[in-house]
Amino acid sequence: MPPSKTAEEPYHIAVCLFPGFQLLDVCGPLDVLNILNYTYPLRLTFLSTTLDPVTTQLNPNSPFEQRFVVNGTYSNPPGGIKAILVPGGGGTRNPPPELIDYLRREGAAPSLEFLLSVCTGSALLAQAGLLDGKKATSNKRAFEWVKSQGPKVEWVQRARWVVDGSTWTSSGVSAGIDMALGWISSTCGEDVATTIADQIEHEWHRDASWDPFADLYAEKK
Amino acid sequence: MPPSKTAEEPYHIAVCLFPGFQLLDVCGPLDVLNILNYTYPLRLTFLSTTLDPVTTQLNPNSPFEQRFVVNGTYSNPPGGIKAILVPGGGGTRNPPPELIDYLRREGAAPSLEFLLSVCTGSALLAQAGLLDGKKATSNKRAFEWVKSQGPKVEWVQRARWVVDGSTWTSSGVSAGIDMALGWISSTCGEDVATTIADQIEHEWHRDASWDPFADLYAEKK
Repeated sequence: MPPSKTAEEPYHIAVCLFPGFQLLDVCGPLDVLNILNYTYPLRLTFLSTTLDPVTTQLNPNSPFEQRFVVNGTYSNPPGGIKAILVPGGGGTRNPPPELIDYLRREGAAPSLEFLLSVCTGSALLAQAGLLDGKKATSNKRAFEWVKSQGPKVEWVQRARWVVDGSTWTSSGVSAGIDMALGWISSTCGEDVATTIADQIEHEWHRDASWDPFADLYAEKK
Repeated sequence: MPPSKTAEEPYHIAVCLFPGFQLLDVCGPLDVLNILNYTYPLRLTFLSTTLDPVTTQLNPNSPFEQRFVVNGTYSNPPGGIKAILVPGGGGTRNPPPELIDYLRREGAAPSLEFLLSVCTGSALLAQAGLLDGKKATSNKRAFEWVKSQGPKVEWVQRARWVVDGSTWTSSGVSAGIDMALGWISSTCGEDVATTIADQIEHEWHRDASWDPFADLYAEKK
């Protein structure tokens, strides 16, 4: 059951954090979901290896970082998670093993309804074997590296986002906003998604095949 | 002096947080600045009334919230802040008095080089008297309320963002990304801004007068 206005329990979404996650990969979709939450009750768990806040920086001494409070761990996650969102970022090059284990375990659980990734987050889904035999996309600048992480995946180079069953993967960073709106359109209705896009004054690319960055980075290779 | 590749000290930017800030107002510009920070050293201070983490939710019991770690207070901010960014969000309707006092005190300090706001953050700048006699813009859905907060401001209804001297104000939420890129273009060069926009796969609206949401919400009034 997707998010519902009348469900007895809020719809539980988990976001997987790790040091060096890309800020907008997380906060684009979550800003959209914050607004959905006005009318469709949601619950959010930020997961990490420990309950310590997680930084966007790989350098622990960086004077320019953002740190998020987390409320669940990969080894002991809360129950009832219906959707998992995995962001990308520099930290995907050396992800915590606990995160990949969690994805392998919970990403394939029958109770899970949706698996979503933004940017190079799809490399982590691929490492966990969750994209084998599926269509998926990723960041276009890092596309060759991401492909190398999932040789059994049917990688789609030109796509703002790709849906294969219950698995949603987006292109780089800001594409996560368009995918999140697409997911809301699919689960709650296009009018709901359009209203949210207008509220955040976002020019929603609702065509999942729109992708000027596929050519841009193919040329630069 | 704007951000520089060779400055001895990182360029110090403060972001003003308060309960009920809009997530993307903060994280759109900061994602862009995280990338600028690879080549132009930056320093970030998240300011709040206390050093407790700050939530995006007005309801303290909401099961769907994001909480940010802060590292400075309005009553005792660190020195050397060169630019202040003020986000909008539901919390602007009842902002902490310490935040308005801080803006009144530091927003007009000669050492401050840039004052930036996203969305209804400009209502807080207006309340602090920092926009009097200046051109500014804001969220288009909340425009009439924002105008009421600054009767001496020259409000510009149709604008993705507005620059008046060293003061930059953007339209709602996602417009903050376009404004941040515009600010980087102005201070560090258009090539730097274009490269960042491409890296986050963002279709940058580089024309500050682009604003389909001005008409949309004018019609809905």
